[in-house]
Amino acid sequence: MAEQKNNKRQYRAKRTNNINSAKKRTTQKRTAQKKSAPFKSTRRKTYKKQKPSIKVAFLGGLNEIGKNITLFECEGDIVLLDCGMAFPDGDMLGVDLVIPDFTYIEQNIDRVRGLVITHGHEDHIGGIPFLLSKMNIPIYGTPLTMGLLGNKLKEHNLFNSAKLNTVRAGSKVKLGCIEAEFIHVNHSIPDSCAIALHTPAGIVVHSGDFKIDCTPFVGDMIDLHSFARLGHEGVLAFLCESTNADRPGYTATEQTVTSSLDSLFNEASKSRIIIATFASNVNRVQQIIDCAEKYGRKVALSGRSMVNYMSVAAELGYLRIPDNMMIDIDMLSRYSPEQVVLITTGSQGEPMSALSRMAYSDHRKVMVGEGDFIIISANPIPGNEKTVGNVVDELLKRGCRVIYESMYDVHVSGHACQEELKILQKLVNPKYFIPVHGEQKHLRKNAALAQSLGIDRKNIFIGDIGSQVEINENYIKELSPVTAGKVFVDGLGVGDVGSIVLRDRKHLAQDGLIIIVASLDVYDGHVISGPDIVSRGFVYVRESEELLDEIRKNALEILEDCADNNIHEWGTIKNRIKDSVSKLIAQKTRRNPMILPILQEV
Amino acid sequence: MAEQKNNKRQYRAKRTNNINSAKKRTTQKRTAQKKSAPFKSTRRKTYKKQKPSIKVAFLGGLNEIGKNITLFECEGDIVLLDCGMAFPDGDMLGVDLVIPDFTYIEQNIDRVRGLVITHGHEDHIGGIPFLLSKMNIPIYGTPLTMGLLGNKLKEHNLFNSAKLNTVRAGSKVKLGCIEAEFIHVNHSIPDSCAIALHTPAGIVVHSGDFKIDCTPFVGDMIDLHSFARLGHEGVLAFLCESTNADRPGYTATEQTVTSSLDSLFNEASKSRIIIATFASNVNRVQQIIDCAEKYGRKVALSGRSMVNYMSVAAELGYLRIPDNMMIDIDMLSRYSPEQVVLITTGSQGEPMSALSRMAYSDHRKVMVGEGDFIIISANPIPGNEKTVGNVVDELLKRGCRVIYESMYDVHVSGHACQEELKILQKLVNPKYFIPVHGEQKHLRKNAALAQSLGIDRKNIFIGDIGSQVEINENYIKELSPVTAGKVFVDGLGVGDVGSIVLRDRKHLAQDGLIIIVASLDVYDGHVISGPDIVSRGFVYVRESEELLDEIRKNALEILEDCADNNIHEWGTIKNRIKDSVSKLIAQKTRRNPMILPILQEV
Repeated sequence: MAEQKNNKRQYRAKRTNNINSAKKRTTQKRTAQKKSAPFKSTRRKTYKKQKPSIKVAFLGGLNEIGKNITLFECEGDIVLLDCGMAFPDGDMLGVDLVIPDFTYIEQNIDRVRGLVITHGHEDHIGGIPFLLSKMNIPIYGTPLTMGLLGNKLKEHNLFNSAKLNTVRAGSKVKLGCIEAEFIHVNHSIPDSCAIALHTPAGIVVHSGDFKIDCTPFVGDMIDLHSFARLGHEGVLAFLCESTNADRPGYTATEQTVTSSLDSLFNEASKSRIIIATFASNVNRVQQIIDCAEKYGRKVALSGRSMVNYMSVAAELGYLRIPDNMMIDIDMLSRYSPEQVVLITTGSQGEPMSALSRMAYSDHRKVMVGEGDFIIISANPIPGNEKTVGNVVDELLKRGCRVIYESMYDVHVSGHACQEELKILQKLVNPKYFIPVHGEQKHLRKNAALAQSLGIDRKNIFIGDIGSQVEINENYIKELSPVTAGKVFVDGLGVGDVGSIVLRDRKHLAQDGLIIIVASLDVYDGHVISGPDIVSRGFVYVRESEELLDEIRKNALEILEDCADNNIHEWGTIKNRIKDSVSKLIAQKTRRNPMILPILQEV
Repeated sequence: MAEQKNNKRQYRAKRTNNINSAKKRTTQKRTAQKKSAPFKSTRRKTYKKQKPSIKVAFLGGLNEIGKNITLFECEGDIVLLDCGMAFPDGDMLGVDLVIPDFTYIEQNIDRVRGLVITHGHEDHIGGIPFLLSKMNIPIYGTPLTMGLLGNKLKEHNLFNSAKLNTVRAGSKVKLGCIEAEFIHVNHSIPDSCAIALHTPAGIVVHSGDFKIDCTPFVGDMIDLHSFARLGHEGVLAFLCESTNADRPGYTATEQTVTSSLDSLFNEASKSRIIIATFASNVNRVQQIIDCAEKYGRKVALSGRSMVNYMSVAAELGYLRIPDNMMIDIDMLSRYSPEQVVLITTGSQGEPMSALSRMAYSDHRKVMVGEGDFIIISANPIPGNEKTVGNVVDELLKRGCRVIYESMYDVHVSGHACQEELKILQKLVNPKYFIPVHGEQKHLRKNAALAQSLGIDRKNIFIGDIGSQVEINENYIKELSPVTAGKVFVDGLGVGDVGSIVLRDRKHLAQDGLIIIVASLDVYDGHVISGPDIVSRGFVYVRESEELLDEIRKNALEILEDCADNNIHEWGTIKNRIKDSVSKLIAQKTRRNPMILPILQEV
């Protein structure tokens, strides 16, 4: 904090000196920077020393939501920024989570000086256990971020060996020739930061996830002064998040949620209140706890991740809980409905989450029905609309009152909308602009915003996973891409589920499978036993005996025909069975199950 | 049309007479109805004859979007209203479409007098081929609806035997004691109707799908006069669609789309224009054709269903195509970009649709890239947001300019928002209100609207699939439900994929399968050949040989152990293998593939 204050003081002094030139500077870009840049003039006074380049490689977070990870390299020193995971798309069947491909980092491990983390969300820290199991690099982040990461590393038995370093917003960390400055921003989890990398190539700013909330419910407003100072000093490149780049206007302040919650607590004075929100949204939970205190209700938590997050947040002082406020979920029944609030996970309709279980009467401890007032304090993440809608419908069917989506202002986004993005871009005032964190449409929108602010299209880079750019005072240039991609985690397996396995799962999911087993005579190839037909996920067997019998006959004919014609190459025999049975099934059912002939020699 | 005019004239005369009482009537409900109701007074002058009840059974369309079908029964006559299909949810793996369960109709076939259709959308006619393959009942609908249905029945070889009857909006059809009156409404397909059933029990009105567009692009405004006349005569029950019941305000007029399209055509004057919309939205296509004419562009169509719909619409005079306007998609390359418009399917991001194929460079005839101006003139249906977003992203990556979602007013909904719903409800002014067509949240919202207009909660019925109600002047009463549900169509199979098959598909999709095959000695049960391990969708086999080897050893041990201990019951042996191998795999991989032991006796 001392350091932060110091920075501010320095900056204020500077600002006073330059206040008149600032206006001029915005039109005459870069000239001011050149004047104030402290380049060495020892050798030849007339020549300015050429600054080195910085290389930026994107291992994730472009053309996708999640899995954010960026690699910065300057004069032989590499700094990683964030290392997140992503949730699988609908077509990644059976995959639990998706992490970045770390190959490029492994190839350059001797030059990696450390990993800086912007905040504690899964899409920024979720990949770290998998990274640390390959290489033990030092990690830097704010107290809550490190607390949440520590918890995660304990689950993976990596905590004791990990080199975790706690850094406060406003301070700096030296990583080789690169100095990382942590700058406080507003977001939907406390202790979030943007990072300014002070490098020999110049200053590169990464926004992390942010919004501008002048009246946050807890903590300070985003440290706009620091962004202004950096902009004033001259920023080479700005990597700016794009999540809400297609939303006009501003994200409303958290205070709107406070007043909505207050009036809903008033309205629900005779009901049990159940509120679903993101487990990581510590400030939202604080709002609910404060509201519960005001209305004299006890609070219980439901959902493993909710309990985890809140225990870390409370332990580190990010959650203020009045004495005797919290009760165990088992104690709910001892209180009358109007005496309690239950805060739960499941705001995205996740099938195994606490709220879903309640909706489908599958929760061991909470039965919902008439008299329950349920507030979903979150918006569906794109792709989750249907599952959230289903959960709402089930709750309504049970007679619950449900507040969802835009019915009340019970949720505000954690990300900056267009006007906020423009403010930060203008403050940072970079030479080069790189939109990050978003799908193509978000990246393009954010780029369009930058262009509307006067940045030349050729100074904007829209990349993809694996893209690498070289940036210096004179140019931004795309280099050949680095190894990057999606690595699937399924159970304990990391990377052992690939495109072939997924293709098979998709095939099986569509039309099931038919197994044809036969034992063949080792001498003449004639059938000794079988063929037996086993099917799963194809048709209801008891009602389709005729079809299965036809398949059996068809396979037997081919096996005998092969034996008669001295065809003993199993690959050939299997292919003939596959082809023939496929044709038969397509003709009879217009389906395309997987067909697996299995032969044994006896 | 003559009949319609006649109706209007009668109504106007009536309205003039009753204009003063109308206002009073809205507050003193039902009294006016009783006075003007033409009940017979032949027998005893002092007693009003008790009217019979009407029974309404919902075989689909409640708590779901799609598969609309309702059954009305009065004095032994049954009339069906609509017979739609639904698209499968994400968890109905491999299912092509979902149709209603027709059991209850089959059980009462001798009393079914006919099927009336409100309009030609799939969720209202898509189930008819499957119904007709079980029973050949007469069908009544407007010209375009019957044209589209006819086309569909030809594909199923049912056209020649089908009893299709064309009815114009404004006219009536007698079906036993029930007379069905077709009333013109606005919707996203021409020739849409609401249906008023004049029955001995009273008038029951079904809104079909509708909106109120005072300035539609083609055709007349919704026939509000007829609804007013019915309301004036006295309506027993109103079944009202709920699709947009959670949207406040009004659906904008189609004219807003016209002016948006015009300005976009202007903006894209140097580009090829590609517009994706619903194949059934004939009026939208007309708007595009008119715009193309104005800007001197030729029009090509892409997508099988687009071509199908437009040929029917053009043939029946619902689509006005200027001479020499249409070109074949193969001819596109002979024109320069600014000379053509391509109208395509795929506005929902459907993976096999024309637009998706273009986005993923998989379209045989159209390559997109810079210089293409693509307009998605449709909103994503809930659940499709992600796939639509992916298609937009791919198009953007190829350098296309893409207009999507709410960027411009290039789409308006076909359904009534809250203010429109309230207007129609007030005009119809029913005794009982039944919200239909929607998920629980839509039904509840629509019910809340009715309540806000003064209908008593006890006169509102919110049902479910299979619900049945009895309605008469004195009460609305829920009866025991009828047989109803979802029947899955997969390929040629109707109903042969049920919950067991789907459960297997889901299991296979999650973690794949492991097959363990062994041949056993018919005498002593010892292993003669195998066990062989075959896996699909589980792990990448070449990198997991060690694990598969362990599985093989484990299975062999159990088989030999069973043989040694004289356990020859195959069910027991298989279960022991399943249990043991499951445990091994869970421990090694934390996965749960399907395990299929297959034994053969030799």
